[in-house]
Amino acid sequence: MSSVQTLFQSETLPSGSQAGVPEREERKDYFIERNGTRYAGIHLIVDLWGAERLDDLAHVEAALRDAVTAAKATLLHIHLHHFTPNHGISGVAVLAESHISIHTWPENGYAALDIFMCGDAEPQATIEVLRKAFKPERLAVEEILRGRVG
Amino acid sequence: MSSVQTLFQSETLPSGSQAGVPEREERKDYFIERNGTRYAGIHLIVDLWGAERLDDLAHVEAALRDAVTAAKATLLHIHLHHFTPNHGISGVAVLAESHISIHTWPENGYAALDIFMCGDAEPQATIEVLRKAFKPERLAVEEILRGRVG
Repeated sequence: MSSVQTLFQSETLPSGSQAGVPEREERKDYFIERNGTRYAGIHLIVDLWGAERLDDLAHVEAALRDAVTAAKATLLHIHLHHFTPNHGISGVAVLAESHISIHTWPENGYAALDIFMCGDAEPQATIEVLRKAFKPERLAVEEILRGRVG
Repeated sequence: MSSVQTLFQSETLPSGSQAGVPEREERKDYFIERNGTRYAGIHLIVDLWGAERLDDLAHVEAALRDAVTAAKATLLHIHLHHFTPNHGISGVAVLAESHISIHTWPENGYAALDIFMCGDAEPQATIEVLRKAFKPERLAVEEILRGRVG
């Protein structure tokens, strides 16, 4: 990657709201308590190897949006950069429940993602979306409980 | 957190460039080869406990920008959300070398960060910036080599 070739971003605001106008909505990233463990959220560190279409900006954006939907998360902001000369992409989706990021190295067939979600979102549901979108030969997931108390 | 109270973002483009106009610059996130190990970048998972000023949007933004500078990284885009009712903040800084994210729970004195940097950037240099900015009673760092080959 290097120079910024394409810059894409958009705001996704709750239905009925206008840009810049605050709107009350349900709190979505409260600390979770399950099986006696209290924590802030689940952070998945995901690596794709031998993956396809890592240089396709529209495809990467669609995959990020599909991942947010699959996880039942709320998209607040999405931003992608397309770099030259390798056509690698960096993208972040800011969620009411934290974020998803992706960085791709098409020349290596490699993509590094992290998927951090709090509250009732289901981060594991993003994995099948990524598998279908990028058809990796190998996909590795590491799960980290963030903000663990007790 | 819950409703989006304040929305802040700005674009930081290379000197001399204009929004939307591509500009060639040095490739900054090539795979790194050190001591016989080839990898895409270093991903720091950082937790702050007993931290201060986690509800101060301007302070969190300044800390993110200072962290980018300390790491000798290149800021492309920064975006922060301020939530109610807990005044928690979510922020992402997209870099030519990957990204920094922060999510704060002021009511718990807790912040979850991840700092992913490729190329010649120095992610470890961000730690002292975070320590000074948020004065955590406890700071934990986990380092993950992303995209490791061999």
